[in-house]
Order: sequence, then C-alpha cells, then structure tokens
Amino acid sequence: MTRPSDVREGADTYVIGVDYGTLSGRALLVRLGDGAEVASSVLDYPHGVMSRELPGGPVLLPEWALQHPQDYLDVLRHTVPAVLAQAGVRPEQVVGLGIDFTACTVLPTRADGTPLCFLPGWERRPHAYVKLWKHHAAQPQADRLNAAARERGEGWLARYGGLLSSEWALAKGLHLLEEDPDAYAAAERFIEAADWVVWQLTGRETRNVCTAGYKAAYQDGAYPSREYFASVNPAFADFADKLRGPLVALGECVGGLSTAGAALTGLLSGTAVAAANVDAHVTAPAVGAVGAGQLVAIMGTSTCHVMTGGGLKDVPGMCGVVQDGILPGHYGYEAGQSGVGDIFAWFVNNAVPASVRADADAAGVDLHTHLSTLAAGLRPGESGLLALDWLGGNRSVLVDADLTGLVVGLHLHTRPEEIYRALLEATAFGTRVIVENFGVAGVPVHEFIAAGGLVKNAFLMQLYADVLNLPVSVADTAQAPALGSAMHAAVAAGVYPDIGAAAAHLARVKKAAYRPNPETRAAYDALYAEYLRLHDAFGRADGPLFSTMKTLGRLRRGGGPTEDATPAEAPDATPAEATDAGVLA
Amino acid sequence: MTRPSDVREGADTYVIGVDYGTLSGRALLVRLGDGAEVASSVLDYPHGVMSRELPGGPVLLPEWALQHPQDYLDVLRHTVPAVLAQAGVRPEQVVGLGIDFTACTVLPTRADGTPLCFLPGWERRPHAYVKLWKHHAAQPQADRLNAAARERGEGWLARYGGLLSSEWALAKGLHLLEEDPDAYAAAERFIEAADWVVWQLTGRETRNVCTAGYKAAYQDGAYPSREYFASVNPAFADFADKLRGPLVALGECVGGLSTAGAALTGLLSGTAVAAANVDAHVTAPAVGAVGAGQLVAIMGTSTCHVMTGGGLKDVPGMCGVVQDGILPGHYGYEAGQSGVGDIFAWFVNNAVPASVRADADAAGVDLHTHLSTLAAGLRPGESGLLALDWLGGNRSVLVDADLTGLVVGLHLHTRPEEIYRALLEATAFGTRVIVENFGVAGVPVHEFIAAGGLVKNAFLMQLYADVLNLPVSVADTAQAPALGSAMHAAVAAGVYPDIGAAAAHLARVKKAAYRPNPETRAAYDALYAEYLRLHDAFGRADGPLFSTMKTLGRLRRGGGPTEDATPAEAPDATPAEATDAGVLA
Repeated sequence: MTRPSDVREGADTYVIGVDYGTLSGRALLVRLGDGAEVASSVLDYPHGVMSRELPGGPVLLPEWALQHPQDYLDVLRHTVPAVLAQAGVRPEQVVGLGIDFTACTVLPTRADGTPLCFLPGWERRPHAYVKLWKHHAAQPQADRLNAAARERGEGWLARYGGLLSSEWALAKGLHLLEEDPDAYAAAERFIEAADWVVWQLTGRETRNVCTAGYKAAYQDGAYPSREYFASVNPAFADFADKLRGPLVALGECVGGLSTAGAALTGLLSGTAVAAANVDAHVTAPAVGAVGAGQLVAIMGTSTCHVMTGGGLKDVPGMCGVVQDGILPGHYGYEAGQSGVGDIFAWFVNNAVPASVRADADAAGVDLHTHLSTLAAGLRPGESGLLALDWLGGNRSVLVDADLTGLVVGLHLHTRPEEIYRALLEATAFGTRVIVENFGVAGVPVHEFIAAGGLVKNAFLMQLYADVLNLPVSVADTAQAPALGSAMHAAVAAGVYPDIGAAAAHLARVKKAAYRPNPETRAAYDALYAEYLRLHDAFGRADGPLFSTMKTLGRLRRGGGPTEDATPAEAPDATPAEATDAGVLA
Repeated sequence: MTRPSDVREGADTYVIGVDYGTLSGRALLVRLGDGAEVASSVLDYPHGVMSRELPGGPVLLPEWALQHPQDYLDVLRHTVPAVLAQAGVRPEQVVGLGIDFTACTVLPTRADGTPLCFLPGWERRPHAYVKLWKHHAAQPQADRLNAAARERGEGWLARYGGLLSSEWALAKGLHLLEEDPDAYAAAERFIEAADWVVWQLTGRETRNVCTAGYKAAYQDGAYPSREYFASVNPAFADFADKLRGPLVALGECVGGLSTAGAALTGLLSGTAVAAANVDAHVTAPAVGAVGAGQLVAIMGTSTCHVMTGGGLKDVPGMCGVVQDGILPGHYGYEAGQSGVGDIFAWFVNNAVPASVRADADAAGVDLHTHLSTLAAGLRPGESGLLALDWLGGNRSVLVDADLTGLVVGLHLHTRPEEIYRALLEATAFGTRVIVENFGVAGVPVHEFIAAGGLVKNAFLMQLYADVLNLPVSVADTAQAPALGSAMHAAVAAGVYPDIGAAAAHLARVKKAAYRPNPETRAAYDALYAEYLRLHDAFGRADGPLFSTMKTLGRLRRGGGPTEDATPAEAPDATPAEATDAGVLA
C-alpha cells in the first residue's frame, strides 16, 4: 500500500480525479509537478437516467429518477485506463485516486456492499436501484420529516435553513420504507453512491463528512435520534443504523486500492484512495477557495454556492452548514439558486423568434452567444425591464418552490435580447441577495469565484461583477470537480499536508478576471433596489403580493381559487427541481 | 339639391359611407331596401403616413406622423366611382354620402379651406401638413395644457378624465404655434380632416359635434376660453378663432354636393352629405348600439370603447364624455385600452419560437390561429400565469402611459401558448376593469358588442364573454365604420328620421353570439381578483410597487435612478401610442 511518505510531488508523479455527473463520469489525470491536466476520458452511463421505466419494466412514476450502480463501475473500468493510455503514464506513476459525485444520490445495499438491484429477484423493483439526486417522488415524506423536526424542536434543523429537501437521504429513505418495506428491510445499508464507489475501490465502508452532513443531517457527531425517526414512522426508528460506517474527513486516505479495485482501474493495488466528495463542494479547492470570504458559485442549469466561513452563523435560508463540510477545520456553507442556466435555456427554447435564430445562424454563433452580444450593446436599465429569477422556485433565502418567475416593464418595442438580458440580470440580483444575506449574517463575501458551464459567457461574468460590485474570479479549467478530486487524492497520498496546500499548488483560477465597472454602479443599485421590492412583495409571507403567487400556484395545480389554506396545510416549500448536484450535470 | 322629402327607402336607392383609416380610405355602397353591402373599394393613400420625411425633405423627428390632404380627395375620386361601377348603380340612385375619419387628424388651412401645404412656398414645411392622430410630438404642450387647466380649475377637464391627450387638437395647435409661428399665423383655420373633406364636398365649413367634443374640448356650447389659452401662451389666445364654423349634429345634412364635390365623386350635385364622424364612434350604430348599457368595443391594435349613457356621470379615467357625441340627445362616453391586438402581434413577432411557427405552417394556419387553438385546450388558471396588459401603457381608469406590461407565474415548463393565453386574458381583465368602473360610476353595462379585426378570433370572443360574465355580441360586417357612415348618410338624406331608426333597419350584429360559460366563472373571478391586486399595486400612486414602474421608466429614458421627482415635475401621464383612431388603422 502506498503511504504518504512514499510519494513526492514530481514531474513523473500523477493523481487521478473521477467526477461522477448526472449523465456521465469523467476521469482526469493531473501531473503533480506542474498541475497540468494531461488527459481526460468520459463515459456516458450505459443506463443513463432511468426516469420512464426500468430495463424490461416496470414503468416509473413521473417524479422518479433512478440510476444503475453498474454504470459507476464501468466508468472506472473505461476511463482510468484510458487516461493512462492517452498520456503514456504507467500505473506506478499514479499515487492517488479521488472521486466526487452528484448528491444526494443514494442506494440500498446489503451489509457487504452488494446493491439490492444486483440480487436475483430484485431486478424489477424500482426501490432496489440508485435514487438519483433529482428523484423528486419523496416530497410528501420530506414534508412530514420537516413537520416532525419543527414540532420536536430538533436543533439540527436550523443548520439547513429550517428545511430538509425531498432530495436528501432522510426523505429518500422514508420513501423506500413506506413504498417498499421489503426492500427497506433487505437494505442493511443506505449509502451515498460516492461512498459506495470508494467502498468498491478499497473494500472499506466509510461515510464522508460532506454528504453525511449536507445530505443526511449528520451534525455535531450524530445523525438525528431514533426518537425523531420513530416520530415520523415507528418502522423508521432504525434508519440511522443503515447509515453506519466510520466518518472520514475530506482529504483523508480511506485506504489503498484493493485487489478488486486495482483490477477495475488498472492501477496498482495499494494506491491511495481519498474520501469521496460532492461535485459542487470539491470545486472550492479546485478554484483556490480555501479561505474565508471566497464564495464559489458553480453556475450551470442552477447555481450552487459554497463557502468556508469563520464560524457557525445562522444564515437565513441557506441550504446547509456543516463542520468540515468543505475544508477540514472550517464550517462550510452551501446556498443555491434553483434556476440559472435553465432559465436562459428555457428562454432560448421557448421565446426566441425565428428571425433572431436566423441572425445567429448567419453569424455562425449559438443563440446564447448571439443574444449576449446584442444584450451587451444595451446600457443598464435601457430596456426598462426587470425580472424575478424564480422560474424554478427559490432555493435560498426565501426557500419556496411555489414561487415563480416574473417579467415587468414589457412594452410594444421590447426586443428578445432585452428580455434575455433582464433574465441574466435577475439571476445576478438573486446572487446579490444571497451574498448580502451572508454578509448580514456575519459571513461576509469579498470575492466571487465562478465555475461551471456559464463561465464561458464573458458578458454574464462582467454583469455579475457589476451587479455584485465584487471582483469575479473564474475557474481556469472546464473540469473543476475532477481537478478538486485529484487534489484530494494528492492529499490522501501524502503529497500535500492538507487541501489548502494542495490548492496552493494545483488550483486553476483567473483571479479577478472581471472587475466591477463603476459607471454601471448607480443604475444597477437602482435596479437591485426594485428587484428587492419585487422580491419581498411577491416572495415573503407578509408581502402584499405573496398571495397572488400562491393563488396562481393553486389554480395551476387544479385546486380551488379560494385562499382558505390553514396553518395545518403544510406549504410545499422544499425546492423541487434543483440541487447543487444538478448544476454539474 | 336632394332634400329629405325627395328620397325614399327602396330597392333601387343607395347610400355611400366612406371610412378614412390610417393607411387607406374605403367606400362602401349600401342598398337601403335590404341593407346589403353591395360594393366596396379601397385606395391606399399615395403618401401613406409620412413619419420619416416629407417628399423631397426635410427629415422629420421621431414622433412625427403627417399626411397629405390630397390623398383624401384621391380616395373620393377613385373609390366612389369604383363602387358605382362595380354594382352597376347610377349616380341618381345614390341619395346620400357620409364619411368618418381617424381623429384627431387635423390640418391648417386658409379661410377658404386651402390647406397650407397646397400653397407655394409651404411644401417643405412640416407644420403645413395634416397631423395624423398618432403624431406624438406635442407631449410637452399637452403637459402644459393640462397643468394650466388644473391650475385654473377648468370645469371641462373632468369631462376628459382629467387629462387632455397630446394627440388632440389643443396640443397639436399649440405645437404648431410654438414651432412654426408663421404657419400658425397663416393658418386661418385649424380643422379636423373629417370636417375639411365635408367642406370640400359641400363648399360649407362646419364642425361636427363629435370631434369638436372629444378632440377639441368643446363642452356645453363653447371651446375653452381665451383666458385659458392665453395662460398657456399669450400668442395662443386666439386659438378658438381657428376652430370657428357652425357646429353640426351627427346625422345632420351639412348640404348637398357642390359642383366640385359632384365632379370629384361622380355623384349628382345636390346629393345629401352628412356631418362627418369619428371611425370608432360611428361604429356604435353600425352594430345597433343605440341604447344605454350597450358597450361597443372596437377591437384592433388597441380597443376603443364607446357607449351612450343615461346622463352625465363622473367616470374616473374615461377618455371623454360628450353631449350628442355618439347619438344625438345622449351623452356619449369613450374609454379605451391602449394595447390589445398590438400586444398579441408583439408576442407573435417577438416571442414565438421557430418550432411553434413550423407547427402553424404545417397546420396551414397563421400563428394567432395556431396559438389560440393550443390555448383553447387549457383550463382557466392551468398555466399559472397572469399578465398586466399595459405594454402600451394604460389609457383608461389609470391613464398613465408610463405603465408597462408584466407576466408573473413563469416557470421552466411554461409554453408559448400559455403566455399567449395569459396576454389575451389580461386584455379581457383590463376590459372588465373598465366595465366595472362604468358600473360603479352609474353607467352600467349589460351588453358587450365587439367590432374590429379581433372579432374573427372566436376563442378570444368566448374568453371575453367568460371573463366579463356578459353576453358578447359581434359585428356582422367587416366594414362597420363605413356602414355607420352610410347610415348617417341615410339620415342626412331624410330616409330615416334619426340614427336609431337607421340602425334598426341597417345595423349588422350577431346578438349574444358568445355566452358566458358558468363553469369558468370561479377560476376567472379568482384570476381577476389577482389581476386587480397587481393592477392596484403597480398602477395606483399609492400602490406598493408603483414606484418600481416609475423607476424603470426613468432608467429606460436614460434618467437618473433616484426617486426625487417633485410634485412640480409633471408626470408624463398622457397616453402616447394609441387612440381610438388607431384601432381602425
């Protein structure tokens, strides 16, 4: 087994990070001497996302999203040998392996780690498979879990802004119990796919502190109590038993590659394997965010914000705060915007006329590029438009999935690029709300670091710098999660003493690539003030138009038009369509 | 000269109505025996709308819109002979001629009726031409006229909902004076094109009570006082002198065709010519609206509402109330929505993706038809969307051109036909506000009669019936204004004793073609309640989001973002982009 003392940072020494996304897995080979990303390889999951039916049946209900764990092993089998072959690197030159994953992506297994769906007789049972992060069928369970936690005054609830998501392990576990009690009973373990893959590589069952904290309510050294679980459903009392296994810190070496793990990857037995991580959170060190005040935004279909803070603060509406959850020794904060890139995609797919598309085609650019170029020609405020970016609900600060998007200022000369720009600006204003919310709570932000697919839109990045009035640094790699995992591999291998040191050598970021333009300041401050007015009027329970959004939601769902909701009628307030994991999909 | 006693209603007797629109003039030949529309002919104005430059220059400023009076004579010269020829009708079979016009469409002439622009040396001077209804360069003048009227407590101001429009004769006259004093001095008359054409036909200078009342502030037998005009600009004191000429009632015979008029039209000298009318107002009798409680909506790019009421009531935000203005012996009310069909056109031109357009093409229908068909498949409230129909400002009730459109309820699955339907619904809610406003003011509406281009959209008509909870009757002619003018010709010719009698014989309307569907009532009442919430929040000065719209407007116009508007800073509150005339363009 390779021990920290055996390895060194050198031109001929490598680490591998494997990033498990929603549709594919990617291996990245990083040379420690200069931090170069020397090779990468992607495998699309053979089973993809199973949202309509299992292979051979049965048909799945609308909110379901399953995966097949065999696909995760196939990623290792194909991509790790591929990057070695591409770069001409020998297995003995690779000193460590780290992985990151979407989360909460979770599966039931036997005590030996065998997924239920691998067992004869279970192939046709949906609950035997991996529930992907965006499996949203457990909302009723989440509602009851939240109600019980509120009622019992569970202290840990505040660490999640007062709400557990239907996407997380507790709701998914209760869903398993209540819909397929046999599967629940057979599931001796209920484990994040991230930890399960590490288990397959090392033969050692562990739980990384990141997913345990952010997705399974592990706080201050414990999961929620048997009494709490029993209060929701007596048969659920034993749920924490299924989460058992030693907690491992981020950057910790879980163990060396087992014989089976070595056979799977083509690496040497004993190669250091790091504790698993979440794709969003592992991005922080990849872009050098290892100090306080550096807010990392992984901007894709949605945006996930992660930040290490100076202490434990009560930040209203955050998704979670976890000790050691991003960087050992620090509290890690997570927040998010449920719709960002998917709002822009919605607009491009649903609201751009053929003439504009033809212009983009003539210019040889995609519609986002074309619209951004047109939008960049406007001065702030010129369109007279202002939008609320809640087309996917609101995940942070307000935490209300019923909220919807709004555009005001439309007139008969309004052009498509003006609406596009208003939507871009709205997401920037939404980010500013989160940034200011952190500041007010005592976790001030002084640098905004963007990663994810939207970083390539320079107009958007400048807009964020202007609206936030903060320097915007950007990831200098398209594979930030895999790079972050490779860093953790290097720490696990003992090349660096900690993640901070690894980041100092390997992080890839363009510092302050965009700086606020002082000339736009007054206009954006004015627009932001009006954004806040709309935000509070429509989004807060005491706002004058809060009831309008709620009534529209009721009518949309086919409910009656009357406003007779009683306090007992729990609001459907958990974000339904997005998690941090989604942004990296 | 043909006198009333000389003519009769018979199978071989005809009248002609000529409707002057924004881009063309149309003659309609109507047989009195059965009311048949036997022939029509259209001439596009050779000079069209001159909004960029005069022929040969100079270039015009952006808000300008001029016309050439020769075009109006050309319409008579081409279309009247054409309808006779088409139908094989001899001139002696035509007993009367009536016209209607866009308004306020006004020109400066000498005392003998010669337009200034016909005189040598004036061809290149923009102020010598006809100012079309949508000439919007006189807003600063309108603002000052309104301020002065408020300050002096002019009683007539209330008859216009408290605001004169920049489109009307007073603002256009002051604009003439202040920008081209020589032209103002040379203009011995300032006359509606409607009255000028009648003058050219009969040799008699008159002023019809409709345009005098609705467009030139003629109330209770007088124009505003010399003192009022002088208070705005001392040189403007004599303005009412330029409006002189006997007032003529609607349906009155101004005179017989002069020799010149007969030469122009090919009709017999002496043929009765009716007092001129406004295109929107003349539609009322054409669709049989000659009693109280019948609200006629001329629905095109915008909607103009006209109704004869039982007395003089104070209806907040109406465009105008004029004694005898629609039907002799009754007060006539006018209201309006500044954006209706042009909102739908804006959506189709700016916000419908190529895929939907391709579907429409494949179905062989236009986009409005295709989107209406898709929208009709939704239940009320299903989209979760609600809109404010203020893309062209708000002309009635709120009377504020700064107000803008809004869409709320957007989410990532929102489809184009859902937004389209929300915009249609918003215009219906806007109509309901006007209908209810009339009711509260003591002028109740019990029938809604639709005319104009939008009548052909059956889905929209049913929607109005459902939202208004009123039977919707629809015009049974595509040429309602010309038909209304033909009716006035018949009254002027003495065929009928009054317009009511003419309407009884000649009106073309499908009574209660659409009836409210009681099943939609609850949902539309709920949506309307939320529409009112948005309406008051964004549209009323004491609403919580009124300042948002104002700030967005300031930023759009390039003004500063601060909200330091003082009371002395008169709001730009006169509708800028629409009049009743516009809907018939």
